Amino acid sequence: MESKTTPARRGPKPNLHTRDDLLRAGVRLLHDSGYAATGIKEIVDAAQVPKGSFYNHFDSKEDFGGEVVDAYFERGHGELRALLTNESMPPLVRLHTYFDERIRGYRAGGYLRGCLMGNLSLEVADHSALIRERLATHFKTWAALFENCIAEAQATGAIGTRLPAPLLAQFMLNSWEGALLRMRAEQSDAPLYEFMEVVFRSVLA
Amino acid sequence: MESKTTPARRGPKPNLHTRDDLLRAGVRLLHDSGYAATGIKEIVDAAQVPKGSFYNHFDSKEDFGGEVVDAYFERGHGELRALLTNESMPPLVRLHTYFDERIRGYRAGGYLRGCLMGNLSLEVADHSALIRERLATHFKTWAALFENCIAEAQATGAIGTRLPAPLLAQFMLNSWEGALLRMRAEQSDAPLYEFMEVVFRSVLA
Repeated sequence: MESKTTPARRGPKPNLHTRDDLLRAGVRLLHDSGYAATGIKEIVDAAQVPKGSFYNHFDSKEDFGGEVVDAYFERGHGELRALLTNESMPPLVRLHTYFDERIRGYRAGGYLRGCLMGNLSLEVADHSALIRERLATHFKTWAALFENCIAEAQATGAIGTRLPAPLLAQFMLNSWEGALLRMRAEQSDAPLYEFMEVVFRSVLA
Repeated sequence: MESKTTPARRGPKPNLHTRDDLLRAGVRLLHDSGYAATGIKEIVDAAQVPKGSFYNHFDSKEDFGGEVVDAYFERGHGELRALLTNESMPPLVRLHTYFDERIRGYRAGGYLRGCLMGNLSLEVADHSALIRERLATHFKTWAALFENCIAEAQATGAIGTRLPAPLLAQFMLNSWEGALLRMRAEQSDAPLYEFMEVVFRSVLA
């Protein structure tokens, strides 16, 4: 286990730091530039670790890509779960707040980069079963959080639609990924607001 | 202008054929492997043309990428327009038929590759204003065809929703791109059927 408070280090970095540094650099570079456009040399340079250390921690670029997906999802997932399970807010307000916050984040970032999981689904999933399966697993976890909010809102009558909560949750997640895709092509938040309007005024009405 | 019927050729191919062959190979390779993963050497080899000829026709890989987007959209757009403007079918039936046919095509292809325009929106749009603008233009043309069907269905009362047709059309297009994204992560048509169910039973109800 890695200690949270580490003493000032001298000499070469210990292994667990190297691994974390590589994954942090990987999340940033794959998100900025994509998988094929990012070389291992770029990753080790960005992480400021010796090139040889990459293969001490990862079997291959593909193996590293799978871990990057995990690291990216885990980073966002804590906040996502905290908000979507926050029972001090009605379930539809939680969902609305989640998307409002994401839109604010994308606006601050100039509508670039989008969702790394969406990006890798289109760039890499066909070519790597390993990465595809990580993406599929995390998308399911994500959809389950939407589903719980939707089911709760249906139970309280806040949502009238009779379509099943699992179906609505999957659709909402996929439509959000589609809105982010179009945001990149338009370099505009219009697709995100169109998503909000149709989802909250129609699909979840 | 290129003649539709060309005599049997001898010796080096004429220029316009080279250009078309390069674009055809480009559509296939960028769709299969992505933009960064496809090198110019691979494109000229697949097109069976001399390497030097690439730069006789295109200023850069980026310029070529823009033309590939145009070629891909034009190829699908004729069929799309013919179906969605076919007044012998009610407008909602046209839309439903369009998606049914696309789902059949993706199933036949093993749920791979998805939509090249969606793929390039996520992989390249941040890094190339030229390609991004082509994508944005074609997405608008595509959405306008959906919009016409939706407006017609609203006018005849086949759709009851009061949300504006332009909004519904954009949302539908983006949600379809999102469903295709998730199809790639799941390697399954479930996201496509979820799209159909929510769009036709709720959004366009």
